[in-house]
Amino acid sequence: MLTLYDYLDSGNGYKARLLLNQLGLPYTGVELDIDKGETRTAAFLRKNPNGRVPTLELEDGTFLSESDAILFYLAEGTPFLPEGRLGRAQALQWMFFEQYSHEPYVATPRYIMRHLPADHPRRAELPMRRERGHQALAVMETHLSAQDWFAGGRYSIADIALYAYTHVADEAGIDLAPYPALGRWLARVAARPGHIPITRG
Amino acid sequence: MLTLYDYLDSGNGYKARLLLNQLGLPYTGVELDIDKGETRTAAFLRKNPNGRVPTLELEDGTFLSESDAILFYLAEGTPFLPEGRLGRAQALQWMFFEQYSHEPYVATPRYIMRHLPADHPRRAELPMRRERGHQALAVMETHLSAQDWFAGGRYSIADIALYAYTHVADEAGIDLAPYPALGRWLARVAARPGHIPITRG
Repeated sequence: MLTLYDYLDSGNGYKARLLLNQLGLPYTGVELDIDKGETRTAAFLRKNPNGRVPTLELEDGTFLSESDAILFYLAEGTPFLPEGRLGRAQALQWMFFEQYSHEPYVATPRYIMRHLPADHPRRAELPMRRERGHQALAVMETHLSAQDWFAGGRYSIADIALYAYTHVADEAGIDLAPYPALGRWLARVAARPGHIPITRG
Repeated sequence: MLTLYDYLDSGNGYKARLLLNQLGLPYTGVELDIDKGETRTAAFLRKNPNGRVPTLELEDGTFLSESDAILFYLAEGTPFLPEGRLGRAQALQWMFFEQYSHEPYVATPRYIMRHLPADHPRRAELPMRRERGHQALAVMETHLSAQDWFAGGRYSIADIALYAYTHVADEAGIDLAPYPALGRWLARVAARPGHIPITRG
């Protein structure tokens, strides 16, 4: 059976949880508390030297990390990976966009607001991060004004990757009201069969 | 013919240039000067709404962005993409690592040092960025102490993605001397057939 090293508040972990549920794949979840340093222990660094969740342990004991690489692995051979060379590349384009231009500016301010004390010096980063978060959301809005999904003409791992932190952007202090096409896309994603919320509880 | 919108000092652009050369694929290069805002014009934003190079224009006029998605697209069906589902996922794992945990901490300080004036306030970011750059290089060193290549047991797009900014880390003020296995890997990459340096000149 697959084992997912995870943290329930993590949107990156949620990506893997959501796809595993939609694929109907059973797995063992192992919860690690980032705030308590449980992803930086010597034992966990042997599983993922970069010390991050999610990390997926395959049946043969191989460890795979990076949320979007885990999505790609799980989706191969299923309808969640677009067909065709261009469709796959376009899904990856949006997934790299997510990790480079979106996650640091939507997920990181959410982390700062939810996990760091109100007087923490990293709060000073919030205005810059939110501004760049809005830039990423505007790029998504442009795409979604013309298309229902991010790649391949249907719901795919690109949508899962971008949904994970976008749908909780309000928890980062980022208002989604200026992005109506994005709002309709969020509703489409949430209506997919097998959809689950970001935390189990 | 393919058209590559590029900037010669960009390691992200170099990834595409290097693989195109190693594949023997002819292309038209269009140089855009980031410092002059040439990637943020209305005309270019119609090609890539995220306003970044490299962007690859395919024969049919489709635009593909994100350097590592371009690598994946070009490598499909060639020996530069690892065979097998796990090999492909492991290549992507390292490519997402590159964009999230390496590029902002090796490429960005290089950009600050080469493109911003000596009294620019962003110089204050250099110590934090270099520290995290060293963390990324240490993760690479751990891997390379046990294996010659990053994925699939041979030279692949994962090596190209990580080589691009690692081999010029000195230009970011990051010393590679503490990473001997990484140094040997850099030499192996530079010895591959069809290798070219980061700038044409």
